[in-house]
Amino acid sequence: VALGEFELIDRLRELVGGGSPAESGERAEVVVGSGDDAAVTVPRGATVTSVDALVDGVHFRRETWPARSIGWKALAAALSDLAAMGATPGEAYVQLVLPADLPDAEALELGTGLAAAAHGHGVSVLGGDVSRGAVLTLAVTAVGHVASAEDVVTRGGAAAGDLLAVTGELGGAAAGLLLLDRPELSAAVPEAMAERLRRRQLEPAARIAAGRALAGAGARAMIDLSDGLGADAGHVAAASGVRLAIDLERLPVQDGVAQVAEVASVEEIDLAAAAGEDYELLCALPAERIDEATDAVASIGTILTAIGEVRTASPEGAGVSLRDSKGERSPRGFDQLRSP
Amino acid sequence: VALGEFELIDRLRELVGGGSPAESGERAEVVVGSGDDAAVTVPRGATVTSVDALVDGVHFRRETWPARSIGWKALAAALSDLAAMGATPGEAYVQLVLPADLPDAEALELGTGLAAAAHGHGVSVLGGDVSRGAVLTLAVTAVGHVASAEDVVTRGGAAAGDLLAVTGELGGAAAGLLLLDRPELSAAVPEAMAERLRRRQLEPAARIAAGRALAGAGARAMIDLSDGLGADAGHVAAASGVRLAIDLERLPVQDGVAQVAEVASVEEIDLAAAAGEDYELLCALPAERIDEATDAVASIGTILTAIGEVRTASPEGAGVSLRDSKGERSPRGFDQLRSP
Repeated sequence: VALGEFELIDRLRELVGGGSPAESGERAEVVVGSGDDAAVTVPRGATVTSVDALVDGVHFRRETWPARSIGWKALAAALSDLAAMGATPGEAYVQLVLPADLPDAEALELGTGLAAAAHGHGVSVLGGDVSRGAVLTLAVTAVGHVASAEDVVTRGGAAAGDLLAVTGELGGAAAGLLLLDRPELSAAVPEAMAERLRRRQLEPAARIAAGRALAGAGARAMIDLSDGLGADAGHVAAASGVRLAIDLERLPVQDGVAQVAEVASVEEIDLAAAAGEDYELLCALPAERIDEATDAVASIGTILTAIGEVRTASPEGAGVSLRDSKGERSPRGFDQLRSP
Repeated sequence: VALGEFELIDRLRELVGGGSPAESGERAEVVVGSGDDAAVTVPRGATVTSVDALVDGVHFRRETWPARSIGWKALAAALSDLAAMGATPGEAYVQLVLPADLPDAEALELGTGLAAAAHGHGVSVLGGDVSRGAVLTLAVTAVGHVASAEDVVTRGGAAAGDLLAVTGELGGAAAGLLLLDRPELSAAVPEAMAERLRRRQLEPAARIAAGRALAGAGARAMIDLSDGLGADAGHVAAASGVRLAIDLERLPVQDGVAQVAEVASVEEIDLAAAAGEDYELLCALPAERIDEATDAVASIGTILTAIGEVRTASPEGAGVSLRDSKGERSPRGFDQLRSP
């Protein structure tokens, strides 16, 4: 049975807008939730706001992706930016453009995915907007909080002598994308491993707890790996006015990435260092605090790996150098890896 | 000369993100603006957040609308929701989906329109996101502030005995849309009047000052007229659990709307009471404060017109009654007026 327009919106609102998370000292108090012209909150400290949009055919493919994953990923990607600031996510606002030919069941699955990501990350969806349009599009605004504005970690604080470290494992999302786009490649790895790789692409976790742990352990600059390690390190280098020297042989590459790379005729390093969307965190921190940071990240079940160091920008200018034993490398970026 | 992808984004960022407005006591302090993973602000009172999206072919037509107007309207529509809460807009976040065939010049014009609307309404654009995609889409998140959460005016406070009043004039946006869709109708009115009507549709003003004035003058419920008077009054009626009785003969209809309605073979009341996007404010306020509210709105150069009253919901239930001398009316809604 096809739902009427308003009924679909009501069902989506119920799915996505339901249930506030437990109040915390940092999170904003919610005075007016969804259903009015605007939401009203009373933030307690500083507010951190990020936006992210996913567009069918660009960031995902409606034909091959589960609708639930599309919803999940849209929210997780926006939350990842908050993680990279060291903030605790509190509220989110979701704008959906739904094509007329999208079955109601898929629209609701998408809502289920948004709700699951919200619940999983402790976020309340306080507002939204549903439009009809030709291309499925999800635009998310995520709002987080820190006790004080001084607690945020920007991209701009890396200093010469700092170590560079990365959370978790890299390359899984890109390998997963290859498996989604070219299912015949899945034979290269055991099915359970293939499924783990696909899920890295489809339903990433925003590294909220790790971001807070790193902020607490003295991280001076931080960014989430959405565009790929090389590009994202470049953003930190530019904002901090430094040179980042990364040793590609130290990258923590996820199991199975090498096998997928081989059957796809790309290099492992293309998937781990250039293709993005792993949503791990890259940070610069004082060398003497690396052990403390490693322990803090380990205590929440994630690994932290030192992968390089921060150097002064002169004489070669701010930027990134990616090296392995063969010398300087320029891994192939995400766009070149995506199938047309 | 076609701009590269990153150059276009940089140019858009410069256009839209430039210049913070003067600090005010209510507005949030901006600690980190655009260019990092997220923006950081320190709000002073309560925060009011609204989202709105415009999609090509649904909310505007790329072929016939000036790109500047598309940018302007996307921001103004989101700000209008803040006006309806009695909030002062402070910050905005903009997500753009730009088709590959959109000329750079048009993308920049769109940015110019966003920037003009931001400047005109005293708003800083603190963040954004540009994606490529098949359908031009603008999703805006607008953030406003009030000194205290008790100062916001929701849809839910209308009480029996209150008067209903509307700011400004109605019907202009719908008449303007007809003129945009069917230019041959423009002969019905002098060109300067046609241009005023088109601009009501293309570049509406969010009634920020009027919203604050009405909140200060005791408005108990308020909504902006985006869906049309009948539909928006219905939202207030449902949220407040009351019946709204509106006298259609008292509506302040904009000059030229009657003439356009006649040549378009629709009724004036269809344009003024059912078609939306005038972005005027409808409020319910105690009868004894109507003179104070009228003066407050007049002092900022706008008119306030009493158009009906609030009654108890029983026995006929919460809802809206639209009447003129011929009796109960059901004006034709916006969707039916749009050309296919």
